Amino acid sequence: MAEQNKQKKQVEEITSMEEDFAQWYTDVVKKAELVEYTSVKGCMVIRPYGYAIWENIQRILDGMFKATGHENVYMPLFIPESLLEKEKDHVAGFAPEVAWVTHGGKEPLEERLCVRPTSETLFCEHYAHIIQSHRDLPKLYNQWVSVVRWEKTTRPFLRTREFLWQEGHTCHATAEEAWEETRRMLDVYATFAEESLAIPVIKGPKTESDKFAGAVSTLAIEALMHDGKALQAGTSHYFGDGFAKAFGIQYTNKENTLTYPHQTSWGVSTRIIGAIIMTHGDDNGLVLPPAVAPVQVVVIPVAAHKPGVLEAARALTERLNGFARAKMDDSDNSPGWKFAQYEMKGVPLRLELGPRDIEQGQCVLVRRDSGEKITVPLAELETVIPAQLKALHDALYQKALANRASHTYRCTSLEQIQQALRTQGDGFVYAMWCGDEACEDAVKEATGVGSRCIPFEQEQVAETCVCCGKPAKHMVCWAVAY
Amino acid sequence: MAEQNKQKKQVEEITSMEEDFAQWYTDVVKKAELVEYTSVKGCMVIRPYGYAIWENIQRILDGMFKATGHENVYMPLFIPESLLEKEKDHVAGFAPEVAWVTHGGKEPLEERLCVRPTSETLFCEHYAHIIQSHRDLPKLYNQWVSVVRWEKTTRPFLRTREFLWQEGHTCHATAEEAWEETRRMLDVYATFAEESLAIPVIKGPKTESDKFAGAVSTLAIEALMHDGKALQAGTSHYFGDGFAKAFGIQYTNKENTLTYPHQTSWGVSTRIIGAIIMTHGDDNGLVLPPAVAPVQVVVIPVAAHKPGVLEAARALTERLNGFARAKMDDSDNSPGWKFAQYEMKGVPLRLELGPRDIEQGQCVLVRRDSGEKITVPLAELETVIPAQLKALHDALYQKALANRASHTYRCTSLEQIQQALRTQGDGFVYAMWCGDEACEDAVKEATGVGSRCIPFEQEQVAETCVCCGKPAKHMVCWAVAY
Repeated sequence: MAEQNKQKKQVEEITSMEEDFAQWYTDVVKKAELVEYTSVKGCMVIRPYGYAIWENIQRILDGMFKATGHENVYMPLFIPESLLEKEKDHVAGFAPEVAWVTHGGKEPLEERLCVRPTSETLFCEHYAHIIQSHRDLPKLYNQWVSVVRWEKTTRPFLRTREFLWQEGHTCHATAEEAWEETRRMLDVYATFAEESLAIPVIKGPKTESDKFAGAVSTLAIEALMHDGKALQAGTSHYFGDGFAKAFGIQYTNKENTLTYPHQTSWGVSTRIIGAIIMTHGDDNGLVLPPAVAPVQVVVIPVAAHKPGVLEAARALTERLNGFARAKMDDSDNSPGWKFAQYEMKGVPLRLELGPRDIEQGQCVLVRRDSGEKITVPLAELETVIPAQLKALHDALYQKALANRASHTYRCTSLEQIQQALRTQGDGFVYAMWCGDEACEDAVKEATGVGSRCIPFEQEQVAETCVCCGKPAKHMVCWAVAY
Repeated sequence: MAEQNKQKKQVEEITSMEEDFAQWYTDVVKKAELVEYTSVKGCMVIRPYGYAIWENIQRILDGMFKATGHENVYMPLFIPESLLEKEKDHVAGFAPEVAWVTHGGKEPLEERLCVRPTSETLFCEHYAHIIQSHRDLPKLYNQWVSVVRWEKTTRPFLRTREFLWQEGHTCHATAEEAWEETRRMLDVYATFAEESLAIPVIKGPKTESDKFAGAVSTLAIEALMHDGKALQAGTSHYFGDGFAKAFGIQYTNKENTLTYPHQTSWGVSTRIIGAIIMTHGDDNGLVLPPAVAPVQVVVIPVAAHKPGVLEAARALTERLNGFARAKMDDSDNSPGWKFAQYEMKGVPLRLELGPRDIEQGQCVLVRRDSGEKITVPLAELETVIPAQLKALHDALYQKALANRASHTYRCTSLEQIQQALRTQGDGFVYAMWCGDEACEDAVKEATGVGSRCIPFEQEQVAETCVCCGKPAKHMVCWAVAY
């Protein structure tokens, strides 16, 4: 009974999703020990368990970047004000939200330096130094760094003044190549979201009003969270030759003519951990997709004081580590407390091993997503565990897909949008748009949903704009967004 | 002849070490494409080839940290001024050289934030939050980040206003455990330097005057560069409970008493890339130890236009990638140009493959360190290449060790020190010291060498202090330092 009480106590500490989704989120990031607050307002400590998720994300994405020919570099943390100002749309977009360094030691600086909010300007300066000939192209660079944007209101992972990300910056001989790269990296992100994070995404360009500062076009992947709000999980920008012109990047082409190259940039940040939490989590806490789970299988010895149990559990854990990320918890907490603890932390599989199991050459495997318990012969773990991890991934994906399907509303009038949101809750609204920014604003004003992207996979929901009734140009995916 | 000229031209572009070692260094970091300068004074771009060395260093060290039970975290980039000021020695040491953020967007900040020069204060604040009981100890944390110190004069890798490093921060129940950790991590660094970088190091504590700001004791590994100057390649600090007291970190011990824990921190930075360059480099450029070389074997097709050569070279490269980091250069540059280029870049092994080689089932392998050429049957590459990489590592280590031996001077008077340095060049001076800071200063004043560390491996060079003639306490390793 004591065990059960402890277990209950632990679980009771998080607010239920239905009751208060925002509080549930805050509880999960704290109780699962992903982050801790600091005295630096808007910045967070990413704790070992949270950082291990990020390391897995990095490892997988970095492998995908390298497989597509990209190289990692490191650019300075600081950008001189005059450098930031070289591309006028870019500075207009970022200057209001940067942190300024004004003093080095006791000396005031001759020129203020901003702490990078993004590094287009530094990459451009570097490209202007190192690119002379068509032989120098393409340059396919990426960096893993932290960036700073002085946000007013912040939430762990979702919006913080400092966040970790990768930023790819590439330079190409032609517009076609640069555009191809922009699409390729969006596809890399979508593949990663779906195949590694089990998060289904919608791909498409942003509208003009929502583009990255300085971009010709911004492509995004948009995911739907459990509460029906949208989260932009990655962006890929096509710059044309605008930055090249602003920064004087020129190369001699094969015809010996001085030419401006075409550029892209693309990024995914620690924000995506917020997407994992809000796509898969439940009232017992985090649910982690196996590909990025720091621990894929937690081994819990049952009746650990009985002779041979701990030794067997230890040996089994070592064996599991040959093909999965496994960990044994041999602390003196009760099994019940441990069950709740690793549920909170979203560990995909729990393996229970007690004296009777050992006798019978079996163990109990419990799925984090469904709670399903199966008894598995120990000899079969090499096949059963990978199969269960894959099945769990697939189940998470299908569940997220079903949630999205049941919260995607095809609407042909503002009233329909209002009613769908009121009766069925927040979600993706698919509705037609004439392309006029005034209508985009009016939809938001009237219904609360903003344009997320213009999905590549278009549907002909209607012939006319949901707002003004003029001929429609696109179907837009609208939503309330994080 | 054209080939040879090109090759010469390339090589002539770097200054010889004998002529001007500092210029040689600058030439190498630029020509080997490790770094590029930026408009941010004192900061550098680490280019793909330089960053790939750092990635290898990270991978190996991170594995060693994890094998010794450490976990990675991420702390904020910023430290509020009031937090930095909590430990008085620490702030006195760092405040004069930090960059200050004073504005977020257009708003002046209520409190200045410094860009982290090191993160003891942030870790301590976090530890105060998360440590309550002896069950919470030890905490063995590390982070891979960039830090900023507003240096007046800077040189790539050796001293830059921003540099990349890892900083370990640990918290232990007892002084003994913390001291053991301090020693353990110094040993990890020494093992890494010797076994992965082929750099022999001297281990020992710093003198009082040279300790880390806030430390009870600072241990260091010191390496001797080709020019006879010392480079501190890693440090490990023992803090006692000083930081714990300043930051109010307390835990309840097994006897239920509130107790201060004991702490350590330890770091290795991109500076160590400077040590690699200056330990192993030569007049043809960089020489990279195989463990961290981005490319271990470069495959150069000879007479690449002849049928079958490129295909054979490509297939061979793929095969080599099964057990080494191999790359083929099939660009239309001449083989001679390529030879010089990859010598400049310090690639450990060059593999030449031409039509005749293919016919005879062999290739030519050229060692970067010795220039030695051997003809190897293609069937034996799986054993010969790993063996040659190991032999090259060992040769680099032995060469560095011999250089250190021939530039280590055991001296019993200031005159002997002066004469050794004048006649044999800069190097390590082993001389006795009474422990008095005035003598330490006087040695530096008279001879130019400062105390580097008090080697754990002591020798009884004399009975008395090299400076004042009083009874000696220690043998100190003195040198001019980077």
